[in-house]
Amino acid sequence: MKICILGFGAVGQGLAKVIETKYDELKSKYDIDLKITAISDRSGAAINNNGLDLVKALEIKKETGKICEYPKFGVNNIEGIDVLSKVDYDCLVEVTPTNVEDGEPTQSHILKAMNDKKHVVTSNKGPLALNFKTLINAARENQVKFRFEASVGGTMPVINLARETLAGNTIKSVQGILNGTTNYILSRMANEGSDYNQTLKEAQELGIAETDPYQDVEGLDAACKIVIIANSLMGWDVTLNDVDLHGISHITSDAVNFALDEGYLIKLVAEAKDEKLTVAPMLVKEGSTFAINGTLNLIKFETDLSGDVMAVGAGAGSIETASALLSDIINITKHE
Amino acid sequence: MKICILGFGAVGQGLAKVIETKYDELKSKYDIDLKITAISDRSGAAINNNGLDLVKALEIKKETGKICEYPKFGVNNIEGIDVLSKVDYDCLVEVTPTNVEDGEPTQSHILKAMNDKKHVVTSNKGPLALNFKTLINAARENQVKFRFEASVGGTMPVINLARETLAGNTIKSVQGILNGTTNYILSRMANEGSDYNQTLKEAQELGIAETDPYQDVEGLDAACKIVIIANSLMGWDVTLNDVDLHGISHITSDAVNFALDEGYLIKLVAEAKDEKLTVAPMLVKEGSTFAINGTLNLIKFETDLSGDVMAVGAGAGSIETASALLSDIINITKHE
Repeated sequence: MKICILGFGAVGQGLAKVIETKYDELKSKYDIDLKITAISDRSGAAINNNGLDLVKALEIKKETGKICEYPKFGVNNIEGIDVLSKVDYDCLVEVTPTNVEDGEPTQSHILKAMNDKKHVVTSNKGPLALNFKTLINAARENQVKFRFEASVGGTMPVINLARETLAGNTIKSVQGILNGTTNYILSRMANEGSDYNQTLKEAQELGIAETDPYQDVEGLDAACKIVIIANSLMGWDVTLNDVDLHGISHITSDAVNFALDEGYLIKLVAEAKDEKLTVAPMLVKEGSTFAINGTLNLIKFETDLSGDVMAVGAGAGSIETASALLSDIINITKHE
Repeated sequence: MKICILGFGAVGQGLAKVIETKYDELKSKYDIDLKITAISDRSGAAINNNGLDLVKALEIKKETGKICEYPKFGVNNIEGIDVLSKVDYDCLVEVTPTNVEDGEPTQSHILKAMNDKKHVVTSNKGPLALNFKTLINAARENQVKFRFEASVGGTMPVINLARETLAGNTIKSVQGILNGTTNYILSRMANEGSDYNQTLKEAQELGIAETDPYQDVEGLDAACKIVIIANSLMGWDVTLNDVDLHGISHITSDAVNFALDEGYLIKLVAEAKDEKLTVAPMLVKEGSTFAINGTLNLIKFETDLSGDVMAVGAGAGSIETASALLSDIINITKHE
């Protein structure tokens, strides 16, 4: 299977690393031969229909920051959409930065690939949270596979868990801690009694929070995820605008300590329940399943047959997110 | 798809109930038309190649305890193996009682079905824990699907979670609380300070523990499950005899209280790690993910790419186990 990777930041590089390391294992275990025929970043792209050397691609990215410096097959200043016209591929992996304003250029990349009868795997929340139906319909009309496990909760099992293990169940509600950065900040505020700004700053220094933490701390990231979950697993037809959204930037250490005194923790909980979408700081009991620490994510499905089913896993991380992308790629080839 | 159900106890009846209730939903959502063409129990069977009336089958079982009393299509004293020769079916659902001595008659049922080119779905741990390779090889040789999500942890996602969401990962170790009865007993002993025998008796009165609790409390049930997990997800080649097995019947309330004083709970933990299989009472920290209460089950996969991934769900219950069987049936029809 020939793969075109658009976006070569932490997640794209993570995927290249994983495919490179696991090449022989994937061949023997799943009988799949993964060739990366194009990689793009802001500088341009590297395109070779016979397959790029991933070790070389990673080295060049590390040294120069530009994939277009790839010897012989590097192309300057080419846009992602034009890469798709030039390269021979079966599956697009779209991992450019998330844009929650209009979902571009990811949405155009995905739609072009689907219209060209290519499968699509993505970790990109933007277009999924804004125009889910458009994408799903395009995949259906073109009879291609569209998988996006990596867009909700990194490596924590969500989409495929619900579709496979809970097949036959109706999912009545979903509740989750879907953002690792805010969970890390709130966990440290509770464990250490520290205040919000100081803790955010330390999280930034550790690389856990972004330099611009807006999407995480104001709940936008979690909101995108609960929208994707509601649309894809519960049959809702909602977008980011339908979420009642509250972030954590106004949580004081006094509030955290007061909750602690009463045996509770404050967590940023995303919820799809009773036709309503909410992302807001909520009280969860100490010692309960929701009282998870650090950057972990958690999801709880309330189902008609299986009762409550929960999953816990790393919500982010480049290798973890790459792992979710890889599982989608494998599942596409297995069921082709 | 035509289904033959061998075994009509709690799980078999649960499945019939679920298929009956969800018939229209399954048709519209997955485009599958499930017909039950045979049901057997100890009394005999009911066989109709055009499909049995499930409401009638459940009523008759409830009133008489015997499926052979099913009007017109009831058959006295027929063995399961002979039902398989008589009925027209595409998929065997094997839910007769678990036999951990020699896995029979389940194993013969499964092998006959596979040799006759039928798919098999089962919740039955016996033959899977004793002769995993024989069954997997038979499925492979006959090119039929063999799924057994319901055999490990009821509706808690295990097999399909690992195969789908964790595809591409190497599972380095597995730890889990895989038996609901013992977790219920140990939870109550910790919460109430009660002793083992009294708590077991109350669990039996509530129907949570069996009249003969041996397989649960001595750890055999959990041992079967960890063997199935090690064989199917980690590529090991082990049987029940390879498990270092310790039950909970010697746990005193003093031991539970002493652990509590130190901030720990005693849980029956099953483990596949460093080429060793263990089922034994272990100390887990209060407030940690493993400190789950009541009949819940929990599993933790340690993976190479995704870090630690956990799932929590109901480990037993007739509708919950039926739900796991149904998800396997749906997945077989989807990927056929």
